Amino acid sequence: MPSVLVVHGPNLDQLGRREPDVYGRTTLADIDARLVAIGRELGAGVSCLQSNWEGALVDRLHAGGFDGVVINPAGLTHTSVVLRDALLATGRPFVEIHLTNVHAREPFRHRSLLADVAVGVLGGFGPMGYELALRGLVAHLRREEER
Amino acid sequence: MPSVLVVHGPNLDQLGRREPDVYGRTTLADIDARLVAIGRELGAGVSCLQSNWEGALVDRLHAGGFDGVVINPAGLTHTSVVLRDALLATGRPFVEIHLTNVHAREPFRHRSLLADVAVGVLGGFGPMGYELALRGLVAHLRREEER
Amino acid sequence: MPSVLVVHGPNLDQLGRREPDVYGRTTLADIDARLVAIGRELGAGVSCLQSNWEGALVDRLHAGGFDGVVINPAGLTHTSVVLRDALLATGRPFVEIHLTNVHAREPFRHRSLLADVAVGVLGGFGPMGYELALRGLVAHLRREEER
Amino acid sequence: MPSVLVVHGPNLDQLGRREPDVYGRTTLADIDARLVAIGRELGAGVSCLQSNWEGALVDRLHAGGFDGVVINPAGLTHTSVVLRDALLATGRPFVEIHLTNVHAREPFRHRSLLADVAVGVLGGFGPMGYELALRGLVAHLRREEER
Amino acid sequence: MPSVLVVHGPNLDQLGRREPDVYGRTTLADIDARLVAIGRELGAGVSCLQSNWEGALVDRLHAGGFDGVVINPAGLTHTSVVLRDALLATGRPFVEIHLTNVHAREPFRHRSLLADVAVGVLGGFGPMGYELALRGLVAHLRREEER
Amino acid sequence: MPSVLVVHGPNLDQLGRREPDVYGRTTLADIDARLVAIGRELGAGVSCLQSNWEGALVDRLHAGGFDGVVINPAGLTHTSVVLRDALLATGRPFVEIHLTNVHAREPFRHRSLLADVAVGVLGGFGPMGYELALRGLVAHLRREEER
Amino acid sequence: MPSVLVVHGPNLDQLGRREPDVYGRTTLADIDARLVAIGRELGAGVSCLQSNWEGALVDRLHAGGFDGVVINPAGLTHTSVVLRDALLATGRPFVEIHLTNVHAREPFRHRSLLADVAVGVLGGFGPMGYELALRGLVAHLRREEER
Amino acid sequence: MPSVLVVHGPNLDQLGRREPDVYGRTTLADIDARLVAIGRELGAGVSCLQSNWEGALVDRLHAGGFDGVVINPAGLTHTSVVLRDALLATGRPFVEIHLTNVHAREPFRHRSLLADVAVGVLGGFGPMGYELALRGLVAHLRREEER
Amino acid sequence: MPSVLVVHGPNLDQLGRREPDVYGRTTLADIDARLVAIGRELGAGVSCLQSNWEGALVDRLHAGGFDGVVINPAGLTHTSVVLRDALLATGRPFVEIHLTNVHAREPFRHRSLLADVAVGVLGGFGPMGYELALRGLVAHLRREEER
Amino acid sequence: MPSVLVVHGPNLDQLGRREPDVYGRTTLADIDARLVAIGRELGAGVSCLQSNWEGALVDRLHAGGFDGVVINPAGLTHTSVVLRDALLATGRPFVEIHLTNVHAREPFRHRSLLADVAVGVLGGFGPMGYELALRGLVAHLRREEER
Amino acid sequence: MPSVLVVHGPNLDQLGRREPDVYGRTTLADIDARLVAIGRELGAGVSCLQSNWEGALVDRLHAGGFDGVVINPAGLTHTSVVLRDALLATGRPFVEIHLTNVHAREPFRHRSLLADVAVGVLGGFGPMGYELALRGLVAHLRREEER
Amino acid sequence: MPSVLVVHGPNLDQLGRREPDVYGRTTLADIDARLVAIGRELGAGVSCLQSNWEGALVDRLHAGGFDGVVINPAGLTHTSVVLRDALLATGRPFVEIHLTNVHAREPFRHRSLLADVAVGVLGGFGPMGYELALRGLVAHLRREEER
Repeated sequence: MPSVLVVHGPNLDQLGRREPDVYGRTTLADIDARLVAIGRELGAGVSCLQSNWEGALVDRLHAGGFDGVVINPAGLTHTSVVLRDALLATGRPFVEIHLTNVHAREPFRHRSLLADVAVGVLGGFGPMGYELALRGLVAHLRREEER
Repeated sequence: MPSVLVVHGPNLDQLGRREPDVYGRTTLADIDARLVAIGRELGAGVSCLQSNWEGALVDRLHAGGFDGVVINPAGLTHTSVVLRDALLATGRPFVEIHLTNVHAREPFRHRSLLADVAVGVLGGFGPMGYELALRGLVAHLRREEER
Repeated sequence: MPSVLVVHGPNLDQLGRREPDVYGRTTLADIDARLVAIGRELGAGVSCLQSNWEGALVDRLHAGGFDGVVINPAGLTHTSVVLRDALLATGRPFVEIHLTNVHAREPFRHRSLLADVAVGVLGGFGPMGYELALRGLVAHLRREEER
Repeated sequence: MPSVLVVHGPNLDQLGRREPDVYGRTTLADIDARLVAIGRELGAGVSCLQSNWEGALVDRLHAGGFDGVVINPAGLTHTSVVLRDALLATGRPFVEIHLTNVHAREPFRHRSLLADVAVGVLGGFGPMGYELALRGLVAHLRREEER
Repeated sequence: MPSVLVVHGPNLDQLGRREPDVYGRTTLADIDARLVAIGRELGAGVSCLQSNWEGALVDRLHAGGFDGVVINPAGLTHTSVVLRDALLATGRPFVEIHLTNVHAREPFRHRSLLADVAVGVLGGFGPMGYELALRGLVAHLRREEER
Repeated sequence: MPSVLVVHGPNLDQLGRREPDVYGRTTLADIDARLVAIGRELGAGVSCLQSNWEGALVDRLHAGGFDGVVINPAGLTHTSVVLRDALLATGRPFVEIHLTNVHAREPFRHRSLLADVAVGVLGGFGPMGYELALRGLVAHLRREEER
Repeated sequence: MPSVLVVHGPNLDQLGRREPDVYGRTTLADIDARLVAIGRELGAGVSCLQSNWEGALVDRLHAGGFDGVVINPAGLTHTSVVLRDALLATGRPFVEIHLTNVHAREPFRHRSLLADVAVGVLGGFGPMGYELALRGLVAHLRREEER
Repeated sequence: MPSVLVVHGPNLDQLGRREPDVYGRTTLADIDARLVAIGRELGAGVSCLQSNWEGALVDRLHAGGFDGVVINPAGLTHTSVVLRDALLATGRPFVEIHLTNVHAREPFRHRSLLADVAVGVLGGFGPMGYELALRGLVAHLRREEER
Repeated sequence: MPSVLVVHGPNLDQLGRREPDVYGRTTLADIDARLVAIGRELGAGVSCLQSNWEGALVDRLHAGGFDGVVINPAGLTHTSVVLRDALLATGRPFVEIHLTNVHAREPFRHRSLLADVAVGVLGGFGPMGYELALRGLVAHLRREEER
Repeated sequence: MPSVLVVHGPNLDQLGRREPDVYGRTTLADIDARLVAIGRELGAGVSCLQSNWEGALVDRLHAGGFDGVVINPAGLTHTSVVLRDALLATGRPFVEIHLTNVHAREPFRHRSLLADVAVGVLGGFGPMGYELALRGLVAHLRREEER
Repeated sequence: MPSVLVVHGPNLDQLGRREPDVYGRTTLADIDARLVAIGRELGAGVSCLQSNWEGALVDRLHAGGFDGVVINPAGLTHTSVVLRDALLATGRPFVEIHLTNVHAREPFRHRSLLADVAVGVLGGFGPMGYELALRGLVAHLRREEER
Repeated sequence: MPSVLVVHGPNLDQLGRREPDVYGRTTLADIDARLVAIGRELGAGVSCLQSNWEGALVDRLHAGGFDGVVINPAGLTHTSVVLRDALLATGRPFVEIHLTNVHAREPFRHRSLLADVAVGVLGGFGPMGYELALRGLVAHLRREEER
């Protein structure tokens, strides 16, 4: 049974609390619960982590114990070579997900330092995007296993 | 029941025929059949179109008769303001999908002329990406209806 | 009597149908009728064409039978070297017109591949801009004749 | 009856005097007389001003007493944020006009600091361009009144 | 009584200790004491925080309990989308302050990732700049209240 | 007693007259009166000047008779090397102030030709910014005297 | 016997008809006839195609039945990712040829979207360039066969 | 006898008064006197003008009455399309001179809007540069006459 | 006896564990032991630190107690103005070292925010590079002492 | 009988000696012999030169005694304005040839300082490219003669 | 008596021989003779050198025996850091001169790698420019002596 | 015993002679003697070469007879594709060394045309850097041998 680590980057702990009219009332806890449930349905273990501290994210990635990663790097997407290197160091595939469509936002959000080494990238689907990312990653892990 | 138009841009008719070692053996017909099936499961009508002619894609989009669009614009992604304008003219939401991870390819594939007006964007998941795109679009149409 | 070809590029067939609050309720047929009438007043023959297919526009330009061209290249303005070459191949002067003020829109609309070889360029006047363009072109053709 | 201010920027006092083979023999006085006449025909009052001093142009725009502006900013087009701010401060619509096709000239003439806040922009029609600009502006003012 | 959070970014704990000939002998403790005193005079509560850890700054901003923020983001000014998002997530106005005139320093210090969403920005006044920033922010909060 | 020249650049004579909903109802006369009063409180002489003519600003700066300058260069901020040279020629320190936060406006307003040679720069605080600028400049002049 | 497809892009049907003083009086028919003759001499089959429609060129390339391609992409050289993808999809080598020396023309003609995946590129030799391209391609196909 | 107009741009009236250690003690009056003397020696009439007002420089150039111009455009060098157009409108040759070596100063001083239409350009020789410029211009006028 | 602090940035704790075929089997512990030994031979004290947390690196640098620093900033090289400021705040010389040749990797690794304020920079020599860096730094410290 | 100079730039003396698997076993001597033979067939004299010294190439070009030049400028293509000037100084047409397809190599090889003044340019055909270049140049010289 | 070395860069040996209609009939020998004569008049020794070999120019500059240099670096102006370093290594002032106005030529001629370390720069005066450069340099050397 | 060629580029013959306060009094002869001695200690043969002539450096590299190269390319670092190609043609590893820290110098010194194909790069350590480079290269050659 593949095991998936879901990583939420800085400021995502505020989801559902700040600007509910824009971001909706879904919280990270809701998302994580839903992902665990879908994981169960797909036959995959899911564990989740949020931190505002880049160092904590890197340490967790180094600790291992997962077959793939779904990551919403939030503001680190555009600035962190360190996170890129940590993801590469895991030796495991990852999917990059954004709640919003970053292409419709400020220009400095158009560049990702992670996307070219990701398996897949998606954005704009709101909280449901995590579900799509998880489905995509699990399918990728299955194909990998079959080879 | 929401109705979805799936648009495959230029050269995608070659899918499953050229370089099967790279792109796999799945053909467009396989993908379209699978999308219709998933559409049925999700309670959505699905119709599909492929053309190597930009004008044909534009004419089809003008003809209407759909609630949303899943589009793989292929090489037109990076060069066609005409396709962008045609999608905007439909007044309907669309999801942009790519088979490969365009961020890991040539620099001229990094810019999309459509992405900032799409609902969501995804790439890198191979043929399965269409399924994720369809799920994401139908969820979006449902939320839209509920408002 | 000078003869003028009026060319409407891709998506302009939607004029008056999509987003009437923004673009008004004037249709291409209205515009073409008005241009023929003004042409008569100015002593100039006017014929009109719209297509969403770049190839069709090029073929029409090659066919000749006109002394000058008023063209709204729409989305092709920014991307089509082919259209530029076709206009140059006519050996006849042309005026480039846009319904909206492209300088107030997205950056990718600020560059025209045609403007530097046009007689004149104008934008921002809505449907009335076609009338101004026709007046400007006919005056140009008259001056050319006089030389 | 709408009232229009026509503003000629620096060096335009030389029109018709320098390089007549290139610019023709029409002088500013000729142009102004023609604009007053066309204004009369269109039911619009027209007054005209030329200055080589940016400060004088700004003071005149601040003085007000007009419903719209036709301006040929000449060399200030590309360099004067001050003129842009003065035009915005009038709170009235303006049309930007150039005698020549600036897109066919030096690259530093391709950028306008005014165009994105103008109603319309036109260039390349020689002295006749002023007439087109006046027609376009008066039509715009009429539409504005009707709202 | 409005409550203001003063945030000092990385390396500012060294103020008054390193290079006193350049930066003077004022320490952060001096600055904080002065700000509390001025706050009292202006009828505003002031609390202060310094950290070299981006995560700590973000966590503090999420904790809330203030009406506005005076922040010297130091080296994070130019590199941290995370800090920008954390400030936006507070939903409260902030003033960006720099001890030195960043425009007179290295080019990479010319770009701020925060300035366009700040209420106001100032730099170059040394420690006194904090006082100016506090006065400016409190006046802004008063105007906000009055609305 | 230090003497300060306050310079208001082009279009600032319109303050309080145009778009009062955006810029408020404070006029330059109000601002100047307030600055003279604050100057008195700080023990500094204050004289003020506004002009829409760059040449007039330069001539005034050459005339001297002040210990420092508070300048709102308005549209000249981004375009006038001449004003920069005139300020440098005074041999006196100056503070650059903007009513609005220029970083939140058009890109061409992001570059200042003066900022790197200013003592301090501030923007976004509305008319109150002049007061902050004056306080900052007088403190700077006091420190200079003490050396 | 190797089989070569010669593809002429948009506007090349005008060759020998427009601007004979610049482009000479050689027509496409002349060129095609000459290429067939040289092909015969070199022991290679040659078939030719011209179209102003990108879609037609792509469809022809997909249809296959050739060992290599000589292509003059004309205006599509600089703008068509679709054509690039279609050429790659053939899995066959191609030579890119231009009648004129594109490096001596407008800057937007300096970038080719095809050149980096071509076997060879040549330009500036007029109609004779096709002959050189054919010789080069046939030699390349022979070397390929020998391996 | 050729007649030369010497034009000194903004801030040059301060020469010899500000920063004598850097710029020396030579004043404009000294320079003008020396140029008149050298003019006499070379058989050329010399008249001189300084202004901080761009409009005044343009008006003077329009007034004519000279065979060539030696101009130190100072800060206008880098920003004034208006001055460029005024110089071109004279129809007479001009030499651009700078006291300092602009290439060794700030990057925004490296671009001249005049240089490409000047007869010759020189900088870095201090006040003596005017003498070299005058010699160069007079020689140019002599060669012109001889043709 | 000079004292040297060796700082290993984020992800370097994985050295020798991940991708041994690429990076070899040498661990940080091996490197640190070797550096202490060489330090002894050169008469220099050596202490070492690794952290994935930028804040921890900054705090350590602030704590002082060393004469110079050898630092492999890893992913922070390209993104951390904070680390630059912390190194400058030490007032001590430092050498920047990279295991790999960053010039042969992704473009975003070509820019260092530290290199221009380092004593020396080296990369591409693998673990042995630390030894070279230490030798270079100790020689630099000796020369400094001698002055 | 036209006389052609063939110039091989720096490092081409290594052809056939270094990396035969990549560049093949053909040497410069082989190429030169083949060119002389083809020249004879085409009725043209051919002489050849290789040097690693830019000065030697320039001196040879100055010496003249040829009607046209086939040149492989190798690494000088991208860096030598001197070679460009020397070729222009010959007053004779030249063809630029590269063994490899420079567009498929490093970005700094994409710019040629010679191409815009060449008659024709070609690359990617290996040693056979010289033959194509010679045929193209001789045809050009024939056409030139006929005029 | 100051001693001046005059250095003519690559291709200048062709002066007066190639394109006399453009460059005139003056040869380097004429120029050198004239410079020696003017040197005598100014009380300065003048020796001259031309080479197409960068290495020869560098060796000559290293050899010394002069107080200042007048150099026309020709094509090396834009490409040779080596020549810049050689000029700096002389420890003597130099004047950079160009026969033509480089600002009116190709963009790649607009950048000089020498100008920012030159005493003065001039161009556009043809052969007479050498005389102006020599006068400027000798005056500079005199002022230097006087200090 | 590995054999190393040490190459000193243009102007390095001046080392120890020019600006001793900046560059110290060490000459190339001193450096070469020290490198031979260290080579002996490391069991490696060392031979050295300096030239101001690029062609001479290339010829020497072609001549071969070494296992690796330590090269200080001096001013050629930033401009010579020819040197890059010559180093690649040797088929042997090389280390690039600079006496100074090029990152702290002019921007045009920040780009190296060699660095991405070097084994390692170092700069800023003065003459001692050669020693470090030699140690690094010899270690590299040893590791290579062992494979």
